Formats: sequence, C-alpha cells, structure tokens
Amino acid sequence: MIRLNEHFSKLKASYLFADIARRVNAFTQANPDKPIIRLGIGDVTEPLPPVCIAALHAATDEMAQRATFKGYGPEQGYAFLREAIARHDFQAHGAQVEADEIFVSDGSKCDVANIQEIFAHDTRLAIPDPVYPVYVDTNVMAGRTGPDHGGRYDGILYLDSTAANGYVPAPPAQPADLIYLCFPNNPTGAVATQAQLTAWVAYARQHNAIILFDAAYESYVRTPGIPRSIYEIAGARDVAIEFRSFSKLAGFTGLRCAYTVVPKNLKARDAAGQEHPVHALWNRRHTTKFNGVAYPVQKAAAAVYSAEGQKQTRELTDFYLGNAKLIREAVTKLGMSCIGGDNAPYIWVNTGRDSWEFFDLLLNKAQVVCTPGAGFGKCGEGHVRISAFNFRENVATALGRIAAALR
Amino acid sequence: MIRLNEHFSKLKASYLFADIARRVNAFTQANPDKPIIRLGIGDVTEPLPPVCIAALHAATDEMAQRATFKGYGPEQGYAFLREAIARHDFQAHGAQVEADEIFVSDGSKCDVANIQEIFAHDTRLAIPDPVYPVYVDTNVMAGRTGPDHGGRYDGILYLDSTAANGYVPAPPAQPADLIYLCFPNNPTGAVATQAQLTAWVAYARQHNAIILFDAAYESYVRTPGIPRSIYEIAGARDVAIEFRSFSKLAGFTGLRCAYTVVPKNLKARDAAGQEHPVHALWNRRHTTKFNGVAYPVQKAAAAVYSAEGQKQTRELTDFYLGNAKLIREAVTKLGMSCIGGDNAPYIWVNTGRDSWEFFDLLLNKAQVVCTPGAGFGKCGEGHVRISAFNFRENVATALGRIAAALR
Repeated sequence: MIRLNEHFSKLKASYLFADIARRVNAFTQANPDKPIIRLGIGDVTEPLPPVCIAALHAATDEMAQRATFKGYGPEQGYAFLREAIARHDFQAHGAQVEADEIFVSDGSKCDVANIQEIFAHDTRLAIPDPVYPVYVDTNVMAGRTGPDHGGRYDGILYLDSTAANGYVPAPPAQPADLIYLCFPNNPTGAVATQAQLTAWVAYARQHNAIILFDAAYESYVRTPGIPRSIYEIAGARDVAIEFRSFSKLAGFTGLRCAYTVVPKNLKARDAAGQEHPVHALWNRRHTTKFNGVAYPVQKAAAAVYSAEGQKQTRELTDFYLGNAKLIREAVTKLGMSCIGGDNAPYIWVNTGRDSWEFFDLLLNKAQVVCTPGAGFGKCGEGHVRISAFNFRENVATALGRIAAALR
Repeated sequence: MIRLNEHFSKLKASYLFADIARRVNAFTQANPDKPIIRLGIGDVTEPLPPVCIAALHAATDEMAQRATFKGYGPEQGYAFLREAIARHDFQAHGAQVEADEIFVSDGSKCDVANIQEIFAHDTRLAIPDPVYPVYVDTNVMAGRTGPDHGGRYDGILYLDSTAANGYVPAPPAQPADLIYLCFPNNPTGAVATQAQLTAWVAYARQHNAIILFDAAYESYVRTPGIPRSIYEIAGARDVAIEFRSFSKLAGFTGLRCAYTVVPKNLKARDAAGQEHPVHALWNRRHTTKFNGVAYPVQKAAAAVYSAEGQKQTRELTDFYLGNAKLIREAVTKLGMSCIGGDNAPYIWVNTGRDSWEFFDLLLNKAQVVCTPGAGFGKCGEGHVRISAFNFRENVATALGRIAAALR
C-alpha cells in the first residue's frame, strides 16, 4: 500500500498569495471601474536587455542548423558562462571563486530548495523571520522539523529580524549547523554590513556550520562597502555556499537562469567525524537530478557580462531603484518608518498596525496591492512589503493614491 | 557540526560514462588519425524543427517589449501548453487527461528524480534491471535502500528484463508500492503490449501501488496497438503517473521541456490509512521547488502541436527510426539477436560476450562507441546499447566498420 510523505501534512496551506488574490478579486468584482496597481509580488516588469534579446535570437539560429545545434550540455553549465561568472561576479571584486565551483541552474528557488538534500536529516537549522518561505517549507517536507505551533515549526532556531536589530539578526547564543541568510533581504530589503557578515562567518567557523547565503538581490547594492558576496569576508570559502540569480539582475524571471557557488574547500563531516568535500556531493545531486539550462538561455545570461550587457543591466536595476527611492520617500513623508529601497527593490514598512488591516486599507482606499508582512513570518506582523517592480507611472500613481488614502 | 546526507556514500561512483570517455580518449590519443563515431549517448543530433525555431524567435521578440514581456509564469506551465498537451497527446487518443493534471517541467530526468519525494520513506520499490540509473540513484540518496551488494541495493525489488521474458518483466509475486516502468524502454528499446500493461495496472490496483510510467520515447512507437500512454489501459488513472518529454520527440535535449501527468483521482494513504489526492502533494512540491519553464521554450513546445509541427516532428522521429532500422538489420545480419529499433531509437544487442569486451572490440576495431549493457544493471551484462541518434552517413559508415570488424 503506497503511502504519502507525511511531513507534507505539517505544511501550512500556502495562504498568503492565495489570500491576496481572493481579496483583490473580491474588490475588483465589486469595483470594476477602479483599476488596481500591484506593488505586491516581486516580479520584474521591464523587458529583457537588448544584449540578451540578441543572444537569444543568435542562439536560436544555432539550434536551427545541424552544424551548430546543441543537445545536452554539461549539467553544471557551459564553460563560457561559468567562466564569465567567476571572472566578473567574483574575481573582479577580489573574491576567489573558480569557474568549476559554479553550478548553473534554472532558478535560485530550485537551488535553495534542493540544497538541503545533501545534508544530514538531523541538521540543526537557523532561519530568519521574516523569511522567503521556501527555506522553511523545503525542510518541513524533508522531515527536519516538528509540527507548526502558532506559526513556528518545532526544531527551527528562528532568527528574529525586527526594528530592534535593524532587521539584521546577530548570530545566536545556541549552536546551529545550517544557517540561511539573505542579503539584500527578501522581504525586508535590509543589507548586512561587512562587520555583521564577519560575525556570521566567525560563528559558522566556530560551530563547524554552513551558511547558505542567498544573494539574489546583490545587483541592487549601491552603498559603498556593503558586501555583495559572502566571499568578500575572509574565511567564508570554508563555511559558505552562495546563491545568485539573473532574475532581478537582468529580468530573467520568465527566462530562468541562476547559479550556486560551492567552494571546493568547503567540508562537512560524516557520522564518524571524517570530513568530505561538499562540492562532490552537490555535483552528484546536480548531475543526477538536473539536465542543464537551455542553451539559448545560457547564451543570454553570458551576454549580461559583455560591456554593453553590464551597462544595460545597471540601467535596469537603477530604474527599479529609482522607483524604490520614490516609495521610500513617500512612506517616510507619511510618517511611517521603513527599511530597504536603497540597496534593494523592496521597502519594508513598519505600519504600526495589523499587516492585513493595512493591506485592506491600501486595497480599498488606494487600490494598491502590497504584501502583508505576516505572510513572511511572525516578525513580519505590523509590516508590509512594497515592491519597486512596476512601471514608473504606476508607482507614481500608486504613491499619490496611498498619500490621499492615509491623509 | 554540519553533517552530510550519509546515504550518498552508498552510491556507486558514476563510472559508466566516465569509463567510456576514458577509454575513448585513450584510443583517440593513440590513434589521432582514426575518427570515432559515437552511437553511445542518447542525445539527438538533428536541428530543432522549423516551427520551434519560429516560435523561439517570436517569443524572444515578445520578451523585448514592455507590453508583451513575460515574467514569472504559472509554475505548472502556461495554459496554452497544458491545454495543447491534454488535447493532442491524450484526448485525441482516447485517454482521459485534463489540462490541470499536467505539470510542465524542464526535463523528465528532473521529474522522475523528484517524484519519490512525495512518498513515504519506507515505500517498497520495484525497479527494472537494466534501467536508467536515475530511478535507483534518487532513491538511494533519499535513504530508501540499504547498501550495494554486488551491483544491487538491498531493499529494491529488481524486475529482471532478459531475453527469457522478451525484456518486458511481468508483475512479481511479491507486493511493491512504487513501480518504475519505462516503455519504449531505455536502454533496451523494448515495448510493452496492451496485455502486459494491463497486467501491471491490475497488479497496482491489487496492491494499492503506484506505477511511475516513463514514456519519454512514446513518439517512436509505430506498431499499431502498442500503447503510447499508460492511460490507454482501463483503470490506469487510479494507479499511474506518466512522464513525457519533448527531448526525443522534437530535439529539445538542449532546450529542456517535459511534463508529468498526475491524475486528480490518484490517491495514496497516510499512516492512519486515510486516502489523499497525490495531485495536491505534487502540486505543493512543484510550486515550492520550481519556478516554471522559460516562456520561449514553452512557446516552442506548443508549436509542436500545430499541424506543421506534428508533421515536422514525425519526420524527425521517422529519420531516427530509419537509422534504427539500418542498425537492426546490420546487427541481425551479423548473426546477433537484438531488440528495439522498431518502436524506439535504441537497439539492445545480445552480444553473447562480456559487454565491456564487446565495447572495446567495437572501439578498437571499428572506432565505434556504443554503451556497455553492464552499466545499466546486472541484467545488462552480455548486451550493448546502440543509439540511432546520429547523422545517416555516420550510421552507415559505423555499420560498415562494425561488419568488417566482426567478420
């Protein structure tokens, strides 16, 4: 008799975006004449950079000819892309990462979801709150947690990110084995300083732990001195895996390309205490369960590293940061405190009231959709996330309506 | 202290294709003037069909304009593709499959690798031998097996596919919960009749088991009456999940698109014996760990279902089947028995000797690379797999050289 993985039954139903959709639909049906502006979901709105479009067309033409057709590529990605990544994203910034430490994939969501498979079942987890739900849910599915008690799973050490610590948690007193960190943060938009990341690397080294560093938003960092990679911290290569994506850098949310860095000197132990390279395990997992990213997509990703590509993607992220600045200023002017928006495309607004109540207020009075913070964890209560991903005119209109609604 | 998933240490090192590469490299270095022809790996060689090329270009142009740009799509795939699949691949053949039972993905390898996650840890597995190694390895990684003893893992019920049963195993006497079947088969090229699949469906119904039916090669079936889908068998919707791919149908090995069918009435039980729909679990897994297939790739896949696309993909599979026929005839003329090649792009040759010895013979005397059957499991010993994926002139040359070498 076939039985289900029972750990799935511990998962909270994914109510957040379903709930948002339900409330938005109800409003739209009742008010068909009032157009909604969505500043909720973190999806880009600007078209792909011209260099990527040209690369997609050129690669498509290659796929049309016998002599240049590409079938299965290396599961880890083509050398042309892995080498461009290592050179431009790391070596150019003084971080020592080699091409064969890079695993190209079809999304950071997949990578941060899959990485837990290569670690032991009784791994002790430390996960921030608020948080991108995938970190938690994938460990629940794998059976690493107990049941949910009032919004928190037994067996997870939660790292509170609140106004009190500037939304950047310090290492805890207790030991943990696997630590999820994300900077610039989703949902808060907070960034970690060199000193803060140094403290985390020291913690990981002390406890023989591994940091899973989600840097999907690193291309939005503008403040000098804020690290864009964990590998800018001395000693991080021994204790950290980094995840990056082309989604928010170059508008690839509908094209799907990302990568994971697993340094070859990163080690974990077996039950007998003997050390083994994590790189070999991830390589085995990656090559067994994945068959590489579409060739045209890898060519489009490589085009990002051309001089023209660097310029075009900078313009793209600058554009969204321009939206973010408008949102930040408008929120501040309304007397609410917020974080993010300067080095991230998200603004985390401390609303001072129930986050769903504030969501409803913006929906009903301003026809603007944001994301209630409570959906990202207990510490998200009292906050909403406003996304800078929209057309400039929509952002301006939304901010005008919000100001009028809160006046 | 972070520890590794120890189950990975049970995995046999992936020697097969590494060993092949090592032997081929050694030969090439010693004989730089003797060009090799590869009939080993199952990768396509013909370019993408023109309808797919046109769709990729058109979708790329959409991604270049604000008004038509596509960001995140539905994780399960766009409706235009899911509906085309349901209509053309199933409903047109009398199989009752709905669009919302189809989960579009970036590869059947990923799907057959990931599906085991939603089932209980102590699921009893039945897996054919010889076999596509992913079925076995992903269950080893998940800890569902004991250690390897002489080429077989404890805890797997192996289904021998040998000359004695025409390379199609009958249901075993023992019960199993999860059964992996692949027809047309990789590596043997064997197909299962309506009666044989009916026996498997009856077995699954009797034991409340689930069949994972890998139909990645269904587009090569030409013999009338041979089922192309498990859902052509009455009652299969209650007990089967089916995997399909655009890789061998339309040359998508470098483009990445596949899909999985999970019927909404398919059920599995919890520990208390209560039934739950498998569809909901797979949907949760899929949406939590995957972010959809590239929009241009989905458009290219949908183009396969146009009238022109159906014609072009038929020509493509006919071409490879033409190669397969040549191989089959040549092998038979040399006095060896074989299976496959009539409804599959693989020919499974009963060499009557050690499979690596035969591999070396073909490499050294004919400069032709095949795949030694032993690499696919114990029952693969004595056989080699010859692939029909190559240019016609290469196939003809290879067959001439093999005939000369074996004369």
